[in-house]
Amino acid sequence: MKKETHLILALDETDREKALNVAEEVYDVVDAIKVNYPLVLSAGIGVVEELSKLSDVICDFKIADIPNTNMLIVKEVLKHNASGIIVHGFMGGDSVKACVDAAEGRDVFVVTEMSHPGAVEFMQPLTDKLAQLAVDAGAAGVIAPGTRPERIKHIRDIVGDLLILSPGVGVQGGKASDAVSAGADYVIVGRSIYKSDNPRKTAVEIVNEIRGV
Amino acid sequence: MKKETHLILALDETDREKALNVAEEVYDVVDAIKVNYPLVLSAGIGVVEELSKLSDVICDFKIADIPNTNMLIVKEVLKHNASGIIVHGFMGGDSVKACVDAAEGRDVFVVTEMSHPGAVEFMQPLTDKLAQLAVDAGAAGVIAPGTRPERIKHIRDIVGDLLILSPGVGVQGGKASDAVSAGADYVIVGRSIYKSDNPRKTAVEIVNEIRGV
Repeated sequence: MKKETHLILALDETDREKALNVAEEVYDVVDAIKVNYPLVLSAGIGVVEELSKLSDVICDFKIADIPNTNMLIVKEVLKHNASGIIVHGFMGGDSVKACVDAAEGRDVFVVTEMSHPGAVEFMQPLTDKLAQLAVDAGAAGVIAPGTRPERIKHIRDIVGDLLILSPGVGVQGGKASDAVSAGADYVIVGRSIYKSDNPRKTAVEIVNEIRGV
Repeated sequence: MKKETHLILALDETDREKALNVAEEVYDVVDAIKVNYPLVLSAGIGVVEELSKLSDVICDFKIADIPNTNMLIVKEVLKHNASGIIVHGFMGGDSVKACVDAAEGRDVFVVTEMSHPGAVEFMQPLTDKLAQLAVDAGAAGVIAPGTRPERIKHIRDIVGDLLILSPGVGVQGGKASDAVSAGADYVIVGRSIYKSDNPRKTAVEIVNEIRGV
């Protein structure tokens, strides 16, 4: 995954045509496009392959199953040319290891803490351990909340030079430049871009904001 | 979901034709068919609709995302006539509530504890809270490990009359009758059935074992 604009598009549009249109407008302004299950279930996994012709694609499937099932999901994703995949650490080291092994060198990102309010109930108390698990399992990076820059700093201290990807920027309230200042390698922005009247203009504005850091 | 044989088939075959063949062989011996992402990604979400013509279908997607994404995944599943969906509780009450609200009366099952070794690292210490969360969120039932009957008993004490579905029976080592004796309403069996030379015969044997309880 290149690191030029520090911006990843969360393409959470569920209509296939609209999603591809947004991707075509902004693919050269972002470092990667992240897709989630709502789009993939609606459009079929083939959409990952289509998008991969424009950009690196990260499958944000937040895989959270037993090792054997995790392995099968990762293998399915690789068939369609994804560059990376997001997994949960909560099911334990064996489940994460199964993903890293199955990824054959593609990037695996482990969720350390999510950006929504409920994440403080069970996940936040475990963030340090989940971040350490990512390091131990040989993950390429982690997901840390763009809504809480002080947590990004904290997670950076644990994961060293692993990549940090931070969602929650834009509609959820986080500021791109704050997240990057705090140590995020990439900010992940969804609705602000794909719901914009001019997705490319909005994406460029975010990139400029980040560059002003 | 009917409760006649107390047996749910985990249809983790990833080849669409093979999966449909197994389903046709055993659909009247099981109370429901459970599908997971490896099959759905490979065959497309339409496979849920095809299977729903034979049986109740539970989408074991172990949903583990922010409330808005969870809602979108559940809505996609409902379009294809699933009877139920499995979600994780560790993202917090808001994420589970989003699934229950979106399910419009279909069954939502919350994972309390999984059957693989890694589940003892982070999940098991939280099992009681996740079980209580299922009750509080208005879930139809919970997932409890068929490999650990004493844990099924413990979880039953917390969830009262919610349904308990227990995977891990068969290849993973759990015994169907032990899980039912411990309080499971349904046991979930995968490989022992779909990899059997005679899936129907194997399914009937498991049902007979359960009935001998």
